[in-house]
Amino acid sequence: MPSLTLAKTNEIIEATFAKAKEINLKPLGIVVFDAGGHVVAFQKQDGASFLRFEIASGKAYGALAVGAGSRRVEAMAKERPHFMQGLSGVSGGKVVPVAGGVLIRSQGEVIGAVGVSGDTSDNDELVAIAGIQAAGFEADGG
Amino acid sequence: MPSLTLAKTNEIIEATFAKAKEINLKPLGIVVFDAGGHVVAFQKQDGASFLRFEIASGKAYGALAVGAGSRRVEAMAKERPHFMQGLSGVSGGKVVPVAGGVLIRSQGEVIGAVGVSGDTSDNDELVAIAGIQAAGFEADGG
Amino acid sequence: MPSLTLAKTNEIIEATFAKAKEINLKPLGIVVFDAGGHVVAFQKQDGASFLRFEIASGKAYGALAVGAGSRRVEAMAKERPHFMQGLSGVSGGKVVPVAGGVLIRSQGEVIGAVGVSGDTSDNDELVAIAGIQAAGFEADGG
Amino acid sequence: MPSLTLAKTNEIIEATFAKAKEINLKPLGIVVFDAGGHVVAFQKQDGASFLRFEIASGKAYGALAVGAGSRRVEAMAKERPHFMQGLSGVSGGKVVPVAGGVLIRSQGEVIGAVGVSGDTSDNDELVAIAGIQAAGFEADGG
Repeated sequence: MPSLTLAKTNEIIEATFAKAKEINLKPLGIVVFDAGGHVVAFQKQDGASFLRFEIASGKAYGALAVGAGSRRVEAMAKERPHFMQGLSGVSGGKVVPVAGGVLIRSQGEVIGAVGVSGDTSDNDELVAIAGIQAAGFEADGG
Repeated sequence: MPSLTLAKTNEIIEATFAKAKEINLKPLGIVVFDAGGHVVAFQKQDGASFLRFEIASGKAYGALAVGAGSRRVEAMAKERPHFMQGLSGVSGGKVVPVAGGVLIRSQGEVIGAVGVSGDTSDNDELVAIAGIQAAGFEADGG
Repeated sequence: MPSLTLAKTNEIIEATFAKAKEINLKPLGIVVFDAGGHVVAFQKQDGASFLRFEIASGKAYGALAVGAGSRRVEAMAKERPHFMQGLSGVSGGKVVPVAGGVLIRSQGEVIGAVGVSGDTSDNDELVAIAGIQAAGFEADGG
Repeated sequence: MPSLTLAKTNEIIEATFAKAKEINLKPLGIVVFDAGGHVVAFQKQDGASFLRFEIASGKAYGALAVGAGSRRVEAMAKERPHFMQGLSGVSGGKVVPVAGGVLIRSQGEVIGAVGVSGDTSDNDELVAIAGIQAAGFEADGG
């Protein structure tokens, strides 16, 4: 099983930025987490506001915590806001339940997650998926 | 009064896993708390996502905090979200107000709680109740 | 590489309790973490005080955070208390820098950690090492 | 005044890794913060333990908070531990007062900080300084 090395992680980030440039998105922050919810790499483009790391991380962390892309986490938050409040509490406030947190799967297995923040949630998710796929993994946006 | 020994606690966990296997649930995390809200035992099945301990604990803790199974805690959260927000605050964010946290009673008295997380809340609760009853206690899901 | 399944984890815990019984230790809490710092299983013996989960976890977490058994973490805390204070801060207060947190290695690679609390730190560490080895892994107490 | 663009930030990180490879250090985590204490970029090499982001950030954050490289922050922590305890408190536990957090100056002005964690503090600092200078900035380790 190909694992989430730093080289592969950087490949994901570059491909995500490339897609964002192609479709002309606003400045982004992109984080990659391993399967245990720890940061492997992050990059923030010039002009992105200062909390991008925290927001992008909250999307990726929420996806890993629930085992589904953060689009699904967002649906959960709408359906059952009290559950999301509880999840936020037990995670120490680490979850941002909106689209743009995408699971990285390799042969079906979750090996990490990408979180993108800076444009609309839909666009954030779109480029995260493109970046993951460009690096040869399966993307699961939820 | 039979108390919540480690032997009894392990019996509850094994019976909960057995029921989950019988009805084919996803990988679960199961925690048992004593009446004082402290962990006695926890087990997480292979493939369960990494925050299962925290979520299962949030269900069991909420049940003990309110003195009712977490299905009732969830109803409270829907009826009075401001109360749940306060409860979350004063507990240090320890409550997850959804079904699957079940009080363990012995001759009516609360002696602990089981929290299950990993499948739907309804299924989580169902196997927690089965596990408690298999160990000879009364289960109170709320 | 043999991984840290729940079956293997339970084997470690049972072997740790067996060794503790053999040398007549006080009631213990034993936790097993995966390599990402997340709980796989915990058991607390009858008569152990209520914070055993948190203390045992702090030993195992500290070992994983630093990449060395917690006997080495304890030495660091004595040599450089300001570093340990900082580590405590950035980890959200999750580190207990005393012996009894032992890395589980498989073919040299860290695959998790055991934390034991309840007797002297030296005895806690001794039984953790015995438990890890009995399950066929390498133990690294620091 | 040359500012801390993402391109320059990546140049710093690459030069830091290059120096670390040259002198054969252990796997590192390297973070770059802007002058406001916010993450611009982070990379963690394969095999580095999972808390590297938090520790490296604590060094960089402490340097920026005090306006001196974290070697000086460490000296402060030794001289006046009560001050460091207060600083830790008011920053929300964000400071790791050991060498390896180096201010990035441009024409004397602080424009950010690099934090490195993974080898000895002295080596962490050495490569951070090399990386900053390679990118054409002045390095201030404290």
